[in-house]
Amino acid sequence: MPLVVVGSVAIDNIETPTARRDNCLGGSATHFSYAASFFTNVRLVGVVGEDWPAEHTELLAKRGIDVTGLSQVTGGKTFTWTGRYEPNMNDRETLEVELNVFGEFDPVLPEDYRQAKYVFLANGVPSVQMKVLEQVPGRRLAVADTMDLWIQTQRDDLEELMRELDGLVLNDSEAKLMTDTENLVEAGHAVREMGPRFVVIKKGEHGAMFFSEHETYVLPAYPTADVVDPTGAGDSFAGGMMGYLAEQDDFSPTTLKRAMAYGTLAASFNVEGFGLERMQTITRDDIDRRMQEYENMLSF
Amino acid sequence: MPLVVVGSVAIDNIETPTARRDNCLGGSATHFSYAASFFTNVRLVGVVGEDWPAEHTELLAKRGIDVTGLSQVTGGKTFTWTGRYEPNMNDRETLEVELNVFGEFDPVLPEDYRQAKYVFLANGVPSVQMKVLEQVPGRRLAVADTMDLWIQTQRDDLEELMRELDGLVLNDSEAKLMTDTENLVEAGHAVREMGPRFVVIKKGEHGAMFFSEHETYVLPAYPTADVVDPTGAGDSFAGGMMGYLAEQDDFSPTTLKRAMAYGTLAASFNVEGFGLERMQTITRDDIDRRMQEYENMLSF
Repeated sequence: MPLVVVGSVAIDNIETPTARRDNCLGGSATHFSYAASFFTNVRLVGVVGEDWPAEHTELLAKRGIDVTGLSQVTGGKTFTWTGRYEPNMNDRETLEVELNVFGEFDPVLPEDYRQAKYVFLANGVPSVQMKVLEQVPGRRLAVADTMDLWIQTQRDDLEELMRELDGLVLNDSEAKLMTDTENLVEAGHAVREMGPRFVVIKKGEHGAMFFSEHETYVLPAYPTADVVDPTGAGDSFAGGMMGYLAEQDDFSPTTLKRAMAYGTLAASFNVEGFGLERMQTITRDDIDRRMQEYENMLSF
Repeated sequence: MPLVVVGSVAIDNIETPTARRDNCLGGSATHFSYAASFFTNVRLVGVVGEDWPAEHTELLAKRGIDVTGLSQVTGGKTFTWTGRYEPNMNDRETLEVELNVFGEFDPVLPEDYRQAKYVFLANGVPSVQMKVLEQVPGRRLAVADTMDLWIQTQRDDLEELMRELDGLVLNDSEAKLMTDTENLVEAGHAVREMGPRFVVIKKGEHGAMFFSEHETYVLPAYPTADVVDPTGAGDSFAGGMMGYLAEQDDFSPTTLKRAMAYGTLAASFNVEGFGLERMQTITRDDIDRRMQEYENMLSF
């Protein structure tokens, strides 16, 4: 089934303890789309400026991602993020953010996108995320990401959105912030009680937790020594997860858990290169081979 | 098979964000013994002072733990630890440490302990841990725990010990400290290359990682909302792990992984009460029931 994603498309400048890479193809919707494209047809909605290199769009189109919904603003500049990772490769400092055309992003879905059953709202202003939901009234599964900034400054809009969502994914620190509790099991269920039928808490190198009314579980990250650039790991996770759900056209508990595992593996490949570099070298077979290793790892 | 453990036996005063408990039965060898006693015969070596309440010894003996090796120093005072947990229940501040008789601990194993095949050296001075090893020349599996203090101040002795060990368990922060690397996969293998055939990195609420020449894996912690007191979680983990290995009298890769899972579950019960309170309420059946849940959690 087609999967619509709405979110940021960006140029990233990334500094790690051992390297620096400028002008990476970045943004949450980009990382999400690329990961999801191994599983299903992805329809991307985003905005870029006149400075956007055509080869970035080609890279996405080559993966079969529908870029009809990627609009380009004449005279505008693309959203740019510059950040530096700490030696632990988990904490990062944002050195510069230029929202540019993304600051005025008012997503309008192409007509054929509006029939979508599977929708992912990458991190963005909650009221804008809500506007997207209104354009896909026949959706079967809508999942969103969010961030600390909206929890702190747009709480009412975010809570209104949460009541319309099937699922919410967020970081461990964001779940704690939203619920004012330090225990992640309590936090996960407290977020769930705010609306979404399920909640996924992303813990970076420590994996991800899942919460529904009758389920609480955690899956570890795939252990890799080869962490080159964590940028977009969370979005790749969501892309692998949602891509698998859309491919299966099912979100029963069993399928959801397998989707969590696919998300975990998509993220594990994503961090093995700058931007989308590592993702460009893999196939669905590579993901499934790693899935076999991952299942073996968790069997005893 | 009998399992010998040598380490601290203590009185703990514990403060959490919501409660305080004084005069808990604590110490690394104590938590280890209690957890291991659900699996195999445990022979404890430790030292206490004249102030040691007889009911604490009875509590251990009631679980079938052999306390012949627990010596009491007339006129001495028992090792006391007082600590306070941060709201995250992971970080803690040591408010007071009185080593007392444990400061002069010179473990001498009773004659019938010296035939042991399974030995665990709970955290202690590396040169003292080494002296214990020399008393069990026929051992089949010797595993030790250590801490940041010895990594920083007794590095040579610790490295000498590590060359004699089959396995080493340590915390994530200690593994990073020992190897000067932030990536835990790299750190685990770097520690392993210093001697032990396998290394276990404990990550607290995020589970534990295992490293041998041909294996690298991570198992998540059992997710519980009911964290009352994390004191002794790492020792309970080691106790569950070693207890299972001794019970099976086998340490093949398959048994080791199952042992890691049992360690994880022993720790999950331990944190659900102050000191050994929760552990006193459970049976082996409770552990096996949770194992079934844990296996289900990791199947998809």
